[in-house]
Amino acid sequence: MIERIAILGTGLLGTSVGLALRAAGFEGTITGWNRSAEGAESALKMGALDSIAPDGAEAARAAQVTVLAVPIYATLDWMKKLSGVLGSEHMVTDVGSTKGQIAEAAARLFNAPERAAFLPGHPMAGKERGGAELAEASLFRGTVWLFTDDPAWERSPTSAALVKGWREWVAAMGAKTLDLDPARHDELVAWVSHLPQFVSTALSAVLEEEVGDAAELKDVGGRGLREMTRLGASPYSMWRDIAYTNTEAIDHALQILEQRLAHLRENLKTPELRDEFETANKFRRDQ
Amino acid sequence: MIERIAILGTGLLGTSVGLALRAAGFEGTITGWNRSAEGAESALKMGALDSIAPDGAEAARAAQVTVLAVPIYATLDWMKKLSGVLGSEHMVTDVGSTKGQIAEAAARLFNAPERAAFLPGHPMAGKERGGAELAEASLFRGTVWLFTDDPAWERSPTSAALVKGWREWVAAMGAKTLDLDPARHDELVAWVSHLPQFVSTALSAVLEEEVGDAAELKDVGGRGLREMTRLGASPYSMWRDIAYTNTEAIDHALQILEQRLAHLRENLKTPELRDEFETANKFRRDQ
Repeated sequence: MIERIAILGTGLLGTSVGLALRAAGFEGTITGWNRSAEGAESALKMGALDSIAPDGAEAARAAQVTVLAVPIYATLDWMKKLSGVLGSEHMVTDVGSTKGQIAEAAARLFNAPERAAFLPGHPMAGKERGGAELAEASLFRGTVWLFTDDPAWERSPTSAALVKGWREWVAAMGAKTLDLDPARHDELVAWVSHLPQFVSTALSAVLEEEVGDAAELKDVGGRGLREMTRLGASPYSMWRDIAYTNTEAIDHALQILEQRLAHLRENLKTPELRDEFETANKFRRDQ
Repeated sequence: MIERIAILGTGLLGTSVGLALRAAGFEGTITGWNRSAEGAESALKMGALDSIAPDGAEAARAAQVTVLAVPIYATLDWMKKLSGVLGSEHMVTDVGSTKGQIAEAAARLFNAPERAAFLPGHPMAGKERGGAELAEASLFRGTVWLFTDDPAWERSPTSAALVKGWREWVAAMGAKTLDLDPARHDELVAWVSHLPQFVSTALSAVLEEEVGDAAELKDVGGRGLREMTRLGASPYSMWRDIAYTNTEAIDHALQILEQRLAHLRENLKTPELRDEFETANKFRRDQ
């Protein structure tokens, strides 16, 4: 039933969506638009797209489903632009890491019977570096693709059917879908995704300044060090909008961790340290 | 030249040493002692040992080389005990994660011409869980095995030759050896090994308390979360002695990280966040 898909933004996620759709048997057309022509060329060469669109809005109008795979503020800009040019025969979805502002814009600009549907989405998949070149058809396999859809939104029968169809393609790409309230989504990902990222960034930055010039260092660090600093390679460009759109929850999570580190530090030689290890052990046992 | 080795402590490291020696072609005898009989039985069944010794000190006397693969305070206890019963025809080495107190005891109790040699060692290899069952012949392959040997120590020709021979076996097990001053060792591992461990423990403990009971959590966490909390599974028993014997350096490293997290938190919406990411990126690029 979905036969024409437009992907706006052909970085790691957008290109992987194209590749994963093809791998899952999607036989319709996939058109791609990217801010820089090189990114779209890479995606085209890799087989994630059938064609490159010179204009994103026109590509969205020609498609039934548009996937916004750009940073969060760019997603919000596209939402404004597309809400004026798309109608009840269209649906739009995104892959942004925070959902509060996007769900709010979806309610305001989409999801009325005469308008296009918007399904806020967030695949819990990615890499510490971006770019079409790192895209993989299997990126979403075994992962969770979160949605913050609102049952109160009223959609045209056509756009509602496209939403249902897109959810099926997400499952076909190998992801398990899960629906959350947008506020709960942003709180939960602050703990399980944003906090680990900012901790890895801070740890990597501290190590760079304290021992970055130690000649012995390259050899000495083992698997633990590599894993704890891998996310430290993530670029600011991937995290800027997340920090801006989930500030309160990230601020809170960081404060709690700072307090916990201070507590642990003050108890390096007391039995309290055992309790900290046991609580940590419990988290890992339950995962 | 080394034909008789005793391993005191047949947990993950002790058993892996036995397996790695065999894999590297060691054809002499390997005797093992363990505080609990079951650990030694496992190591014997896995082929890491030829026989189990009922008495660790007697096993050390019968061997040329004794490997202490027990926690740090137990290592210090064995050093006291063995210095009285071993002589210039013996050498002892260890695998402890901090070297300050052990190097000091080595200077005091060993490393004189009429005494046994002691070579303080620290393989940068391990797992987040211990036990003979997890031991592997390849555990040390591609890793670094640190020594904090002191060129001023005077050794008998026999024990000096055993030290040289042991270094060759370590290389044969696939590890690269590196010599550091004990104080520099303890400072460096506080940054690259102990800090990552305590951060992972604190992060895991926070997540257990904040979202440990969230039903969605199991599904949502991705590779980043798994990697950042893997060390959270490490038991207190593996880290207690490290916290006690490298307290000052760990305390300092934790304080620096706490300040860095606070700085990052206070700059979630300023350009300063970009600098933090770029410093972190640099650490990863250089590794």
